[in-house]
Amino acid sequence: MAMHNNAVAGILGGTGYTGRELVKLLGGHPGVRVAWATSRSEAGSSLPVAGGSGSVPVVSAESAELGSVDVVFSCLPHGESLPWVERAREAGARVVDLSADLRVPAAGVPEWGRGAVYGFPEGGRAGLAGAELVANPGCYPTAVLTGLLPAVREGLVAGPVIVNAASGVTGAGRNPRRELLFAEVAEDFRAYGVGNTHRHVAEMRHHAGRLGGIPSTLPGGEPSLPGAEGSVPEIVFTPHLLPVKRGILATMHIPVTRPVDEPWRLWAKHYEAERFVVVLENEVPSLFMAVGTNRVVVGVVPVRTRTPAVQVVVALDNLIKGAAGQAVQNMNLALGWDEGAGLPC
Amino acid sequence: MAMHNNAVAGILGGTGYTGRELVKLLGGHPGVRVAWATSRSEAGSSLPVAGGSGSVPVVSAESAELGSVDVVFSCLPHGESLPWVERAREAGARVVDLSADLRVPAAGVPEWGRGAVYGFPEGGRAGLAGAELVANPGCYPTAVLTGLLPAVREGLVAGPVIVNAASGVTGAGRNPRRELLFAEVAEDFRAYGVGNTHRHVAEMRHHAGRLGGIPSTLPGGEPSLPGAEGSVPEIVFTPHLLPVKRGILATMHIPVTRPVDEPWRLWAKHYEAERFVVVLENEVPSLFMAVGTNRVVVGVVPVRTRTPAVQVVVALDNLIKGAAGQAVQNMNLALGWDEGAGLPC
Amino acid sequence: MAMHNNAVAGILGGTGYTGRELVKLLGGHPGVRVAWATSRSEAGSSLPVAGGSGSVPVVSAESAELGSVDVVFSCLPHGESLPWVERAREAGARVVDLSADLRVPAAGVPEWGRGAVYGFPEGGRAGLAGAELVANPGCYPTAVLTGLLPAVREGLVAGPVIVNAASGVTGAGRNPRRELLFAEVAEDFRAYGVGNTHRHVAEMRHHAGRLGGIPSTLPGGEPSLPGAEGSVPEIVFTPHLLPVKRGILATMHIPVTRPVDEPWRLWAKHYEAERFVVVLENEVPSLFMAVGTNRVVVGVVPVRTRTPAVQVVVALDNLIKGAAGQAVQNMNLALGWDEGAGLPC
Amino acid sequence: MAMHNNAVAGILGGTGYTGRELVKLLGGHPGVRVAWATSRSEAGSSLPVAGGSGSVPVVSAESAELGSVDVVFSCLPHGESLPWVERAREAGARVVDLSADLRVPAAGVPEWGRGAVYGFPEGGRAGLAGAELVANPGCYPTAVLTGLLPAVREGLVAGPVIVNAASGVTGAGRNPRRELLFAEVAEDFRAYGVGNTHRHVAEMRHHAGRLGGIPSTLPGGEPSLPGAEGSVPEIVFTPHLLPVKRGILATMHIPVTRPVDEPWRLWAKHYEAERFVVVLENEVPSLFMAVGTNRVVVGVVPVRTRTPAVQVVVALDNLIKGAAGQAVQNMNLALGWDEGAGLPC
Repeated sequence: MAMHNNAVAGILGGTGYTGRELVKLLGGHPGVRVAWATSRSEAGSSLPVAGGSGSVPVVSAESAELGSVDVVFSCLPHGESLPWVERAREAGARVVDLSADLRVPAAGVPEWGRGAVYGFPEGGRAGLAGAELVANPGCYPTAVLTGLLPAVREGLVAGPVIVNAASGVTGAGRNPRRELLFAEVAEDFRAYGVGNTHRHVAEMRHHAGRLGGIPSTLPGGEPSLPGAEGSVPEIVFTPHLLPVKRGILATMHIPVTRPVDEPWRLWAKHYEAERFVVVLENEVPSLFMAVGTNRVVVGVVPVRTRTPAVQVVVALDNLIKGAAGQAVQNMNLALGWDEGAGLPC
Repeated sequence: MAMHNNAVAGILGGTGYTGRELVKLLGGHPGVRVAWATSRSEAGSSLPVAGGSGSVPVVSAESAELGSVDVVFSCLPHGESLPWVERAREAGARVVDLSADLRVPAAGVPEWGRGAVYGFPEGGRAGLAGAELVANPGCYPTAVLTGLLPAVREGLVAGPVIVNAASGVTGAGRNPRRELLFAEVAEDFRAYGVGNTHRHVAEMRHHAGRLGGIPSTLPGGEPSLPGAEGSVPEIVFTPHLLPVKRGILATMHIPVTRPVDEPWRLWAKHYEAERFVVVLENEVPSLFMAVGTNRVVVGVVPVRTRTPAVQVVVALDNLIKGAAGQAVQNMNLALGWDEGAGLPC
Repeated sequence: MAMHNNAVAGILGGTGYTGRELVKLLGGHPGVRVAWATSRSEAGSSLPVAGGSGSVPVVSAESAELGSVDVVFSCLPHGESLPWVERAREAGARVVDLSADLRVPAAGVPEWGRGAVYGFPEGGRAGLAGAELVANPGCYPTAVLTGLLPAVREGLVAGPVIVNAASGVTGAGRNPRRELLFAEVAEDFRAYGVGNTHRHVAEMRHHAGRLGGIPSTLPGGEPSLPGAEGSVPEIVFTPHLLPVKRGILATMHIPVTRPVDEPWRLWAKHYEAERFVVVLENEVPSLFMAVGTNRVVVGVVPVRTRTPAVQVVVALDNLIKGAAGQAVQNMNLALGWDEGAGLPC
Repeated sequence: MAMHNNAVAGILGGTGYTGRELVKLLGGHPGVRVAWATSRSEAGSSLPVAGGSGSVPVVSAESAELGSVDVVFSCLPHGESLPWVERAREAGARVVDLSADLRVPAAGVPEWGRGAVYGFPEGGRAGLAGAELVANPGCYPTAVLTGLLPAVREGLVAGPVIVNAASGVTGAGRNPRRELLFAEVAEDFRAYGVGNTHRHVAEMRHHAGRLGGIPSTLPGGEPSLPGAEGSVPEIVFTPHLLPVKRGILATMHIPVTRPVDEPWRLWAKHYEAERFVVVLENEVPSLFMAVGTNRVVVGVVPVRTRTPAVQVVVALDNLIKGAAGQAVQNMNLALGWDEGAGLPC
């Protein structure tokens, strides 16, 4: 496998928390050099590269040379990303889009955008090798899909899956908003998107159905059937805002069709070939086990109730496996490189 | 209603977080003086009373004059409280037991202990007036019962109730344990008691059934029937440890037998006579709305799913309404005083 | 002493952290009702009053009826307060100005403003009884002056006083700024205003000199001589931003003219008549001892060096004694009421 | 320069925060394998090595094979380390002692221990090449010496240096103590070791004098004269406990013999050859700039006072440059390796 220092990258929206994490990860990547990052408010500044090896100039998106790089990462906000992704594609760059704009074939996604490959490698690598346009999954969907797919593929899911998840504040971005001030967040905890109204629900259901219809072909394999909507598991998803900086913990209640003894074994077997999924034995993860790494850490325990159920607890770093790390992983796969290059394990 | 400064109180286990909160609340109570607090490790010291009005001597439990006080509050650990409650009762004191020892009629509870009144006023005040022995509810059960009872009493509950709750660290006590160190808790978040194994589950189910069998008699009214086990709603309860000091937030998923439009109205009506329950209109609480007060703040929203469900989010202060505040409320009721005397609203 | 519920107050800039603290304190004050609070961005909303007793309407400053209230508190930003204080004075209201605009007789302070009484009761109550215009001290100056004045008045100060202080983030206000986001503040700590450039230095030096020139007349007494600049102690003041919400801790190094045995005794004697100053015996305070109260807690220890020095550590709540609490204390004094009415001790 | 994977290390006291940091750093070091770590309470467990490359067995100190490794790091508590260092030396291992036991030639240090080289490379590398016994500096002394030495060597120090420093809680160790519980530390801030009584003061003064007496020989050079006590700068050092996990910030007031224009230039020049010291231009560091790295970040500004002074603010990561990172740096130097091998920059 070739790993030459020959890929040049640009980052649209490079000064938010995700963009900065990308600069940091790519700064330690053996095969990539970051040529520029864009920012509306910080154009003219620069971002230091870890290890003291230079810095990345920050320019306005308008003046970024989209055609001069091999890969463009877009960390632009949802809704703003699409036109810039189009320009970058027209300029000939591969694109990994970290926004939600291309993750589901929703109304408003143009024809060219429907060819985007959903970049969730642990759910299936079909289409990622050589991909020119990757839709990078959301942070919560990455957590929920990792926890849910083994059950879906085994035909275990017997009813609505109730997911309560909590995220550190970097998930809410770096733009100043009163409700994100230290004095508002510290010592508080709250739910948001209640009533199953969060945008990520559609993304979770769509890909749980699509990827869940293809049992046992992971890793590799081509998803042949989109999940028929009727068979897609119902997911009730409630996110919460944690007074921490980084990390997502999702606690999932999955009613199952039959009691499963030591259910963690099923998850462990499912992911045994995956270097970035760790399944614990009879215990559940805390944020600490995942923060700072590109790993998803999973715990699975049976639930003491009359009707059989399992509880799956999933932890990941929202800025790494939930965003920038997975984007680098997808770039590695698209370029035919070692999947883990530049990623903390 | 008489409110003389004529009740004298003692506190068993008075130097933990709950005991200190009791000293603080009773220090501002117009009708109570605290004569002593006990502690194994801090006997010989004293606890300052707010407002600078003197201090409470800390003595060993063995040397506490149980018979010299009107009311004994026991904040001793679960399992250790029972024999001290017995001695205090024998010495003639009223007792509010904040431990779990007498909350459910479990094996091991002696005959005299079965007469304890479960002190959850918003679920029913029967037996509290004049009560000589009160079992003060757990912090999580207080949150969950407040959120659940209206649905149970309306016959709305259609399936297992999934509760994910998170508590600040004072809920875990003041004894030094490595996992409670700042460097272990800050920036982390984790589930515990997974698989529905937490002790509080039995307490929640027992009283949800018992109190839920008596619709419309709140406030007042005598619970006549213990909830038949078969009809008691199934509760799947998963607590989490939050990197905050105080507060509990419980996010509850309740499948319901029929769609309910603007469900908060049902909860609001249910609790309209309750000064310590606040039901929000179409929004859900964060910890801030409850911390520092004796209130339970409740939000209720419908859930977007094919099968009807509501989501109830409940916030309270684990040391006040979840422990010391509710204990004072119960004492007030037992003594025939204003229920809210000494309590922050 | 009369304490009728007959004073009506208005709050300019009432929705920041200080304004909200004022609403909270005045809501529990036996003699005051708050008629309105102003806000540019939140006009039309209302602020709940603790205890559930109604709420305070939020209006624009332009539409606030300045003449309809007895007392106006201005929590407007430095520089913006002055013209509004003038209007309130012209409308006949007493004013307590919490901004820095009138604290020192600097250039730009008009003639009418030079009559403002500096409202630091523990440094001298001269002029406060009946005062119609009070300049409420800054949070840091309150801490530093409390710690420093006994040494100045005793003629002990032998050289530059080196003050390192740290404040919780509410001291920086409630307007959204990136550097105050949770993700920027948590786990960080930094100095600001380095090189002795903070605006508060002038306020500290001016009043240390002015008040320090009048030994032994505290409490009461008229300051007769402004401190001659040459004799004013040099103060090197470096503030820091703490990842906490509330509280100021100032650690002061004071070179002294002669060794002082058990120096805390001197401070304790100095403040023995003061209910809001607590001097510890041979120990120093942490934030906890002061937060939530109107107290300044002071510790004094000798320093092991060849040249004699003492170290004074001072803690207070920046929103209470450092702002809203002291403002209420000043209002109480101006109205001839009990100095501590409505204030947590 | 040879860098073979041929050094084997053992860690005495390997399960505290410093020991774990060492395991982590050495796990990423290209030339070292950790054979064992010792622990009284956790013997029988193992410590995972980053990157998933195996784990380090945890054994009791008594059963550790001291003679089987090339380098022993001692992270044992002060006072307990000395006898184990002696055994390790007798067994033939090089030793880097992270305790305070050998840092100053105090009473109680045996003859063999007086040969220990004080491992503060940026203050002088004399004796480190080939060193068999290294006393690793304290975290606070590393910060203070880095900030102070340029001034001492230039003969600038004109009077007592006043140092206020604050450390994250990992500096206080991983043993459970009540005052380190999350509920005690969060939202608090306090000074300790007040009155200049902290153990680190002697270490700072001794080495400030010793290293300061040798101008201009950095890097390299042999310190020839122990600093005569009379000329050693007086240091008044007050540490504080911060509610953060990691990091030290020291704010230093240094009276100087003459005004210095743009004083940061002097510090920058002094450290221009040092890769682990970063001197900022006219700004001061916050913890963030140093945490997670082996760097000391230094800011220097003039102070606005009548008598000339400079303020030096220093930030470092207490577990890396303040402990484990510097220990690895010293090991690298002792073995003749690249000084920065395995260290985050």
